[in-house]
Amino acid sequence: MNTTNVIVKTSKEYVVHVGPGLMNACGKILAKLIKPCKVGIISDSNVAPLYLNTVSESLSSAGFTSVSFAFPAGEESKNVSTISSIWEFLAENEITRSDCLLALGGGVVGDITGFAAASFLRGIPFIQVPTSLLAAVDSSVGGKTAIDLKAGKNLAGAFLQPLTVICDTNAISTLPQKFLVDGTAEVIKYGILGNKEILKIYEDLSVPYTYENIKDILPEIITESVKMKADFVIRDEFDNGDRKFLNLGHTIGHSIEQCANFKVSHGYGVAAGMALIAKAGEKLGHTEPGTYNYICNLLNKVGLPTGIPDNLSFTKEELLAPAAKDKKRNGKKLTLVMPERKDKCSLLEINADEFSNYIIL
Amino acid sequence: MNTTNVIVKTSKEYVVHVGPGLMNACGKILAKLIKPCKVGIISDSNVAPLYLNTVSESLSSAGFTSVSFAFPAGEESKNVSTISSIWEFLAENEITRSDCLLALGGGVVGDITGFAAASFLRGIPFIQVPTSLLAAVDSSVGGKTAIDLKAGKNLAGAFLQPLTVICDTNAISTLPQKFLVDGTAEVIKYGILGNKEILKIYEDLSVPYTYENIKDILPEIITESVKMKADFVIRDEFDNGDRKFLNLGHTIGHSIEQCANFKVSHGYGVAAGMALIAKAGEKLGHTEPGTYNYICNLLNKVGLPTGIPDNLSFTKEELLAPAAKDKKRNGKKLTLVMPERKDKCSLLEINADEFSNYIIL
Repeated sequence: MNTTNVIVKTSKEYVVHVGPGLMNACGKILAKLIKPCKVGIISDSNVAPLYLNTVSESLSSAGFTSVSFAFPAGEESKNVSTISSIWEFLAENEITRSDCLLALGGGVVGDITGFAAASFLRGIPFIQVPTSLLAAVDSSVGGKTAIDLKAGKNLAGAFLQPLTVICDTNAISTLPQKFLVDGTAEVIKYGILGNKEILKIYEDLSVPYTYENIKDILPEIITESVKMKADFVIRDEFDNGDRKFLNLGHTIGHSIEQCANFKVSHGYGVAAGMALIAKAGEKLGHTEPGTYNYICNLLNKVGLPTGIPDNLSFTKEELLAPAAKDKKRNGKKLTLVMPERKDKCSLLEINADEFSNYIIL
Repeated sequence: MNTTNVIVKTSKEYVVHVGPGLMNACGKILAKLIKPCKVGIISDSNVAPLYLNTVSESLSSAGFTSVSFAFPAGEESKNVSTISSIWEFLAENEITRSDCLLALGGGVVGDITGFAAASFLRGIPFIQVPTSLLAAVDSSVGGKTAIDLKAGKNLAGAFLQPLTVICDTNAISTLPQKFLVDGTAEVIKYGILGNKEILKIYEDLSVPYTYENIKDILPEIITESVKMKADFVIRDEFDNGDRKFLNLGHTIGHSIEQCANFKVSHGYGVAAGMALIAKAGEKLGHTEPGTYNYICNLLNKVGLPTGIPDNLSFTKEELLAPAAKDKKRNGKKLTLVMPERKDKCSLLEINADEFSNYIIL
């Protein structure tokens, strides 16, 4: 079997399994971690028709029973109303503390399922089965779970590490091209944070950037990304220090997402955010000249934006407003992740009111 | 100052301050624990008019700013809709991870504020300022936070220990008599779990059981109760073992509450549950003869029921249904807390389907 295991040594250690066809092994993997029980599979309207049967059959053949709940796909579903429905579903199906949840889907499914697991009966175990690139390389690892509020994204949630993460790289084959590109923003982010293998892969990449063209190197892309994520998570499980590095591109990125009413997806926002912070960094003398161009080249190659998308226009002032409410804000301070050069970043603490100097459109 | 401190040595150690007039010292106590910040005071429509000014002035004189949110008093408010409003309120008021929440009220306020603190921005600190006897002796200590679902009480929540608990025993003076009686069920429970001081106080008590009659011994009653609670919480912070003892009277009690559509309050349910389990225990040979009578005498003295209240009638079958969904249930097993004698209990694990043998009306 062509499977790689990445061990995440948080307060509770767990394994991220990466490889083609792993969805068929869900039950077998889970059986090594937990006694036979009832598994509450949470998924969405896109993913459930594709993979729910595979997962529940795999669970069943390993001695588990399962019940499933699918909500309408999309970030709009990551809200109080959906988690409330999930909680009631779990209660109606008599899920107990000896049972567990399984998140089958992308980042939205993983985030909301994780929060449901952290809060139902004050916490039951859960496992992540990511089916999008973004979820595979980012949100399924690290234990950050959340829902969005009216006031902003990911404002309510919990830290809960999964029992395990099972990443079937074949699942990316059914991911629409737009989301393959979207998830790649986080992959390139890991490169700029210091992963030279990832940078090499994207430097050498032959276009077009499609699943068919990258499927052979996809397990390596995901594994290297998960290693990077795990490394930061281990150093700072509860997001009080080094984990801030993972926010590269995210402060401006989140602002773009919000100003566009989330018509710009997460990865596109982060890509633009990484390019823009490098641009500002060069002008302000924090960043080695040429870094902005280097980052733009990689982003262009895979089809990601390097600034505010053409069909949208925001003023600097509009972009500043959401950042002021960013939950990463620690009182009046704001921590920016600044590229020093193409493969190294540093943390820069600034006063929140200085932030406008760092937006150069 | 007539203040007692009980130290709760959980993963994060904290102090429960018990004494008359402590509400005026909120700011001073908090200033020793956390840097000046914005405090989100969460209260309800009964308590806010009485004590909000006192608390916010005390905070302000110690260098804190505060914002406040009060919801309609009552268990009906402990739901998804209220916590959603609290989350949005905190976001609108730009509460950050450097700020904290303060629960000013009874058990409902404490439970929902604790869950809001555990989940807003994935966790910010909070302090408990209980104003009911039930909150003072039980829910404010131990870190169990929750909201109710349609399917049952306390089904969604988190474990989060408070930064500190500030229990102003004078606040009990404004508690309606019914709630003084209600909270006393948990106090008597601590007696039966092994606190001889509490049993002595209630054996010697001269009726009527009113605030005026007990105010001099109230700090001792609360302190002894908090010591008992702290002791079980320290031994089992996350409710996987010894903390189950605290459920004495609760399995049948919760069923009574649910069958009565919560027209029977928590303490009245628990009182009836304690009496009924002792009654069954004696008949089934688990409990020393005379224990049921002893418990009934104490409960009668303070005005608590010793069985299903007269104005209600449920069949045994009706009482069994909610217990089957009790979140304390671990798969097909159910753990009962059985009085062995008047001041000692033991845990009894039974099959869920045997539970009907333990309901003798």
